Amino acid sequence: MKKYIYHFTEGNAQMRELLGGKGAGLAEMTRIGLPVPPGFTISTEACKEYYTQGQRFPEGLETMVNDALVELERKTGKKFGDPAQPLLVSVRSGAVFSMPGMMDTILNLGLNDTSVKAVATATDNPRFAYDCYRRFIQMFGDVVMKVEMREFEQALDGAKRRVGARYDADLPAEALAALVEEYKGIVRRVAERGFPQDPKEQLFMAIGAVFSSWNNERAIVYRRVNRIPDDLGTAVNVQMMAFGNTGPNSGTGVIFTRNPANGDPQLYGEFLTNAQGEDVVAGIRTPRPVREMAEALPEAYGDLQRVCRLLEKHYRDMQDIEFTVENGKLFTLQTRTGKRTAAAAVRIAYDMVGEGIITREEAVGRIEPDQVVKLLHRGVDPAAKLDVIAKGLPASPGAASGKIVFDADVAEELGKKGEKVILVRPETTPDDIHGIVAAQGVLTSRGGMTCHAAIVARGMGKPCVVGCESLRIDLDAKRVAATAAAASGGAATGPVEFKEGDLISIDGATGQVIRGQVPLVDPHLGEDFKAILGWADGIRRLGVEANADTPEDARNARQFGAEGVGLCRTEHMFMQVERLPVVQDMIIAVTEDERRAALDKLLPMQQGDFEGILEAMEGYPVTIRLLDPPLHEFLPNAEELLVQITRLRTLGEVRKLSPDEAKELRGHEEMLRKVRALSEFNPMLGFRGCRLGIVFPEIYEMQCRAIFRAACNLKKRGVDARPEVMIPLVGHIHEFTPLREMALRVAKEEMDAAGVHFHFTVGTMIEIPRAALTAGEIAKEAEFFSFGTNDLTQTTFGFSRDDAEGKFLTTYIQKKVLPENPFAVLDEEGVGKLVRMAVEAGRATRPELKVGICGEHGGDPRSIDFCHRAGLDYVSCSPFRVPIARLAAAQASLAGRAAARDK
Amino acid sequence: MKKYIYHFTEGNAQMRELLGGKGAGLAEMTRIGLPVPPGFTISTEACKEYYTQGQRFPEGLETMVNDALVELERKTGKKFGDPAQPLLVSVRSGAVFSMPGMMDTILNLGLNDTSVKAVATATDNPRFAYDCYRRFIQMFGDVVMKVEMREFEQALDGAKRRVGARYDADLPAEALAALVEEYKGIVRRVAERGFPQDPKEQLFMAIGAVFSSWNNERAIVYRRVNRIPDDLGTAVNVQMMAFGNTGPNSGTGVIFTRNPANGDPQLYGEFLTNAQGEDVVAGIRTPRPVREMAEALPEAYGDLQRVCRLLEKHYRDMQDIEFTVENGKLFTLQTRTGKRTAAAAVRIAYDMVGEGIITREEAVGRIEPDQVVKLLHRGVDPAAKLDVIAKGLPASPGAASGKIVFDADVAEELGKKGEKVILVRPETTPDDIHGIVAAQGVLTSRGGMTCHAAIVARGMGKPCVVGCESLRIDLDAKRVAATAAAASGGAATGPVEFKEGDLISIDGATGQVIRGQVPLVDPHLGEDFKAILGWADGIRRLGVEANADTPEDARNARQFGAEGVGLCRTEHMFMQVERLPVVQDMIIAVTEDERRAALDKLLPMQQGDFEGILEAMEGYPVTIRLLDPPLHEFLPNAEELLVQITRLRTLGEVRKLSPDEAKELRGHEEMLRKVRALSEFNPMLGFRGCRLGIVFPEIYEMQCRAIFRAACNLKKRGVDARPEVMIPLVGHIHEFTPLREMALRVAKEEMDAAGVHFHFTVGTMIEIPRAALTAGEIAKEAEFFSFGTNDLTQTTFGFSRDDAEGKFLTTYIQKKVLPENPFAVLDEEGVGKLVRMAVEAGRATRPELKVGICGEHGGDPRSIDFCHRAGLDYVSCSPFRVPIARLAAAQASLAGRAAARDK
Repeated sequence: MKKYIYHFTEGNAQMRELLGGKGAGLAEMTRIGLPVPPGFTISTEACKEYYTQGQRFPEGLETMVNDALVELERKTGKKFGDPAQPLLVSVRSGAVFSMPGMMDTILNLGLNDTSVKAVATATDNPRFAYDCYRRFIQMFGDVVMKVEMREFEQALDGAKRRVGARYDADLPAEALAALVEEYKGIVRRVAERGFPQDPKEQLFMAIGAVFSSWNNERAIVYRRVNRIPDDLGTAVNVQMMAFGNTGPNSGTGVIFTRNPANGDPQLYGEFLTNAQGEDVVAGIRTPRPVREMAEALPEAYGDLQRVCRLLEKHYRDMQDIEFTVENGKLFTLQTRTGKRTAAAAVRIAYDMVGEGIITREEAVGRIEPDQVVKLLHRGVDPAAKLDVIAKGLPASPGAASGKIVFDADVAEELGKKGEKVILVRPETTPDDIHGIVAAQGVLTSRGGMTCHAAIVARGMGKPCVVGCESLRIDLDAKRVAATAAAASGGAATGPVEFKEGDLISIDGATGQVIRGQVPLVDPHLGEDFKAILGWADGIRRLGVEANADTPEDARNARQFGAEGVGLCRTEHMFMQVERLPVVQDMIIAVTEDERRAALDKLLPMQQGDFEGILEAMEGYPVTIRLLDPPLHEFLPNAEELLVQITRLRTLGEVRKLSPDEAKELRGHEEMLRKVRALSEFNPMLGFRGCRLGIVFPEIYEMQCRAIFRAACNLKKRGVDARPEVMIPLVGHIHEFTPLREMALRVAKEEMDAAGVHFHFTVGTMIEIPRAALTAGEIAKEAEFFSFGTNDLTQTTFGFSRDDAEGKFLTTYIQKKVLPENPFAVLDEEGVGKLVRMAVEAGRATRPELKVGICGEHGGDPRSIDFCHRAGLDYVSCSPFRVPIARLAAAQASLAGRAAARDK
Repeated sequence: MKKYIYHFTEGNAQMRELLGGKGAGLAEMTRIGLPVPPGFTISTEACKEYYTQGQRFPEGLETMVNDALVELERKTGKKFGDPAQPLLVSVRSGAVFSMPGMMDTILNLGLNDTSVKAVATATDNPRFAYDCYRRFIQMFGDVVMKVEMREFEQALDGAKRRVGARYDADLPAEALAALVEEYKGIVRRVAERGFPQDPKEQLFMAIGAVFSSWNNERAIVYRRVNRIPDDLGTAVNVQMMAFGNTGPNSGTGVIFTRNPANGDPQLYGEFLTNAQGEDVVAGIRTPRPVREMAEALPEAYGDLQRVCRLLEKHYRDMQDIEFTVENGKLFTLQTRTGKRTAAAAVRIAYDMVGEGIITREEAVGRIEPDQVVKLLHRGVDPAAKLDVIAKGLPASPGAASGKIVFDADVAEELGKKGEKVILVRPETTPDDIHGIVAAQGVLTSRGGMTCHAAIVARGMGKPCVVGCESLRIDLDAKRVAATAAAASGGAATGPVEFKEGDLISIDGATGQVIRGQVPLVDPHLGEDFKAILGWADGIRRLGVEANADTPEDARNARQFGAEGVGLCRTEHMFMQVERLPVVQDMIIAVTEDERRAALDKLLPMQQGDFEGILEAMEGYPVTIRLLDPPLHEFLPNAEELLVQITRLRTLGEVRKLSPDEAKELRGHEEMLRKVRALSEFNPMLGFRGCRLGIVFPEIYEMQCRAIFRAACNLKKRGVDARPEVMIPLVGHIHEFTPLREMALRVAKEEMDAAGVHFHFTVGTMIEIPRAALTAGEIAKEAEFFSFGTNDLTQTTFGFSRDDAEGKFLTTYIQKKVLPENPFAVLDEEGVGKLVRMAVEAGRATRPELKVGICGEHGGDPRSIDFCHRAGLDYVSCSPFRVPIARLAAAQASLAGRAAARDK
């Protein structure tokens, strides 16, 4: 005869198919020596046999259950239906795959009119005993005897009404005892038989109900949807109930094996003596810190410590445990991996390596990169109560508080005095840079994740919230108004208005704008985190570089472990306030000579920048992108000019303009003409990138000269400078060829003049689809590719990021049209296809081609995983995300190895 | 011994390798019976042998040349060096591939001090004789005897100075005779020997020089660049010279076998008796029409007619012939395919089919589609002298003249009075539509090929020039100024200003803006052209549909032979002046209910449009694209609002505003807020296309309802309506799915309500790279693909067409960065790659997938050829380009068959 029953002591985790997931888990816990309440599992084979035989128990099953019960009674020292020490059990279904459609759990099976009294006596808690019985009848009546739940609920409501109870917990013992009688009446009336008083009858009925639930309608639908075979069958788990409320030597608790807030290797949690789990949750009694258990329940506490060590060793991670102590004996009811803060995750992983519990690879694999972002930026104290007045786009992480200022000059002035300010503007322009530098953070009512404010703030690692459209900013009145409707979930109290100097806080990680000053927590980059990052470096294949536009950025990036600069944007250098007039002269120049005159002035400035960056990155490559944005970004705003012109013209209609006014009007008109001539319908797809370099070669030539002159100077000083010249926005090899030739010529001229020589490379961004589609051609001349996946995503999707994020992308994600924001997580199916095509074609032409990514995806863990799989050589990201990228790159390697093993 | 010499009578066109290209050509002309001046070819083998033997004539060559000369003398009745009837010859090199690096031609070889006199006597023209001799010495001295050309030129200049002659032709016979002596002196001095007087010596020296020129430096470089093997060698052609100036029974002329202007099947051209070719060109004597040759040189004229018939039969095309008559005998010196006008090309091809000279396939293949565009639009008379005042982008072909108006209302008003006007605006908006309808043509100073004016005008088939940036339009003063510098090649006379009512003309095919009224020629779509189009229809595989937005467009398209509407843009219906307020109500609606109320008003209007179009296209598919452009395109211009607001605000500072003014200000401020909320940084990549349909499903639902209600009405009337619903701008299958389901639901609702049933399909545009990259997925649900190659080109290149064409594309094409404007000719390497990928993946998923193109490339012949090769099912283009597309599609089929044969 087949063996249909397995005690928990007989199985293990591998016997999932026979014992179901739950049964195998209970067996495994028992096997490793945990004090699991004893019990047994009726196998899935019994269930299959049950169906083969037309829904009848297979031969011998009843005998086996009876034998198993005898054994269970022996182990527990309790007896089924015993009037003094009754054995109560839980009955649970347990299929191979977890299946919500099936019967789940019946607790307290074994209770009847007699044993309920024994429980009342043993726990000295009749209310508890009758509540258990009441719940048992209700559950059993519903799932086993097919009495509709509604019937019991009506009776329960009636009982509460009668005694004026608001909650179930307000019902006294007597009322519950009366309710039990009423429930039994319901069962008798509906099921046309009395509620079974024989525990064994209860048990067999429950087993049959579990078997039947395998083929109820919900379960069948669930299997069909999830493609689970219909013939697997379910197991049935029968387990002793344990009670923590049988006296002062009993108790219950919920603990973590380590501190989930900071990772301290101490038990952490709470317990109560003489109580059941519900009591801890209900909050009627105040739970005590778990360390006090050493005195209150010394023996059980010793067991608990041993259990915790055992669990951590077995599950190789910090555990979150529910336990009960029944008459001094510890039972672990449930254990699972414990949730923890970022800081704790790092500390625990680090400690566990030291304790020999996990390997370095496991430690690296266990840190959630997105979670540790918090450790790298100042953040809002999670405990603080916030008055959120508005929500915008989280443009640059970190939190800051300060006085509201509406003007960059004022920001600079107050900043110099040491005051903390938040710059609040409809949008920022290059004219505001000095104000952004001086401010703690930036808040704008317009713009998307790639607007000026967002890019500049991210580069500086400064908190920034943009596109906060519910704010009404009145620059003239120096006021900003927020409507309560705009704040999501905050405790805002109707429309509010702020004036200059009022305190405000922003959280650039969430996009929240908060009234007043909020408590902040400082970033944490401890030795443990550094050690783990070091291990990650040993594992990863991908290089990690940083996007850095200034020597300071570059130094920062080195400290975070960047192995080079993957993207140095030269335009931000142009935007510095003292350079802007020269840049503007260059742009509005009519002749090439005029343009060259302005460029000559810019040359030494750029050269200085490059020297600083190349020196800070000594020995590592610095990839310098030649000028990329449309020229009109450096000019004044057309609308502002138009307003000034209209104002003066209107005044001129009413009275005679003064000579100064007339002159001003002419000046504005002239400038507006120039701005208009450069203005574009779709600047993102306009006159920018290498298109500037083709039409005005002298601009790129100046930049190349500055780069090579800087490198020559450093070489002469013995500094190992490694410049890489990157041509942006190439879509056709013919765009690249002349610009590369120009760069080679200028390099030769400068090296010859300086009498030094050094290695450098010339490569291109791959950021428009055509570049990816013709990458094989482009690689004939380009020595490296750097995927600009921001622009590549914009062009591949036909999305303008600034417009999409403000207008329809939210709806797209809500309606699940797109699974993610493709600007945050690289779209593997579309954009990724182009990346793979380009890598393959590029390497086919030039096997040694260096390939990386410098879009914002370079700092996103899932995108980094894709970069690893696509065979890229490196990723480049904001300096502040370099640690994240190092970790994610290592995890990508680990995932790759695991996938290779699974093959 | 090898045969090294072939008389022209011995060879044919196939013997190119042995005789060189020129020798084979002369032999072929001789073979078919043309009166070619006799001669012979020394084969390339002789040249190879010459090099094998260290630059010596191969054995026997001299004897063979002498024999050939005897034969030549026999044929011509002249003798080498004869003092009375000297045989003069030309000596030409002739390689297998034409090679400009080599010696080309020596004329009049055989002249010497004696024979020059004979020629003077025979032609009664000593000046001619000595000029021939002078030229011969100069040419021979240069290429054979290595005397630098400079030496001769100095002597020539001296001779001219001496007699005060300005041009060579002014030198009298005596001066030329003296110059001959001087030339001979130069040769003697430099070459250290006298100029050879023995014609045979001249000949052998010339043959050696031709052989040597095969390995001169220029020839070697040319071969390297053009990858021509070095060991092919060159042939040498020796041919009798013929003289048309030996008396009244001689002559010369240049004629076409048919009239190149209109195709009339009559000889067309001019001749002169007793003259050489130079005389015709020099214009000293007035040539006579060729028909008069019937009297002047009757025998030769008869021969000429016979020759022309022979030539047309042989070359199967109209020829352009140079001939000489020497003493009554006709010699054809050169023949080539004649250039002709579009009208003539059509007429000739048609006639030649009738005459049995060419097949219908050849006739179809011979019409240059781009050339016949002119036949479909009114154009500027090519004979007119134009005062071009500016040049813009040729946005919509056709020419028009009319009075300048600066305002759409004025245009309408004058238009109603029957006046012809040209609407001149900085740019147009939907508010100007009624003005465009009323005008003969549109001229704007801003915008690119896809600006509002361009699109609307093309749709209406109305001439339009846009982006004419040199024009300064002052709307207030109602004046437009043009600077002369802007006009390219025109005869403009300095800065000019025009006022309202002045006459102006525009040519939308060239972009020219012309002062005053110019003579126009009407379009020509004669029976011959119709017949050829009919033949084309029998040949082509591609279907040809039209882009049509109105019932009128659709009827037009049918008349031009369109087999359906491939693109019906619904937004132009929205832009009609009486609908715009309702559309604006819909856009600025705050709630869905408000929006639905406006949509309910639009529904019957759209339904009416669709009924008209579906009915006009009865029995053919009508592909209706749901709303595509960004909503703010339907709202007032933000800058104009800002100017009005600033004006009122400024006035409010100076004095109190009237209640009306204050109300106006508030209204403008409110509208500006709404316009701003919808304004976008990059509208091309913004909130448009199916993104509108996803966020505001009620808009697309209204449109679908209008479509199906229209089709139901028609069905009930027995009209065979075939709507196809097209979802624009899909990039992800999840965008398509819900919109398709909505369309199916609405279709069912409307058909059930109407009690009719008809077939329809739902498909998508493929116009962004991601759609092409994931076409396999999209084809799971889409029943057709229509490539929107305008947008696909924009996103694949990362070019905003409006910006690129005004800013850098011109430079790109000038500098050959791009071979073509990719918006005019589809970029096969990049965009085409995406198209091919999408077609392949789409058909793999759904073999019966219907695939077409509806971008402007659908009307471009080279792009149509690509569409054919890429396996598309149809192209769709502007109605006025349908004939072009029918022709181009047939030519693509023919090219495909030819390519298949060549394999």
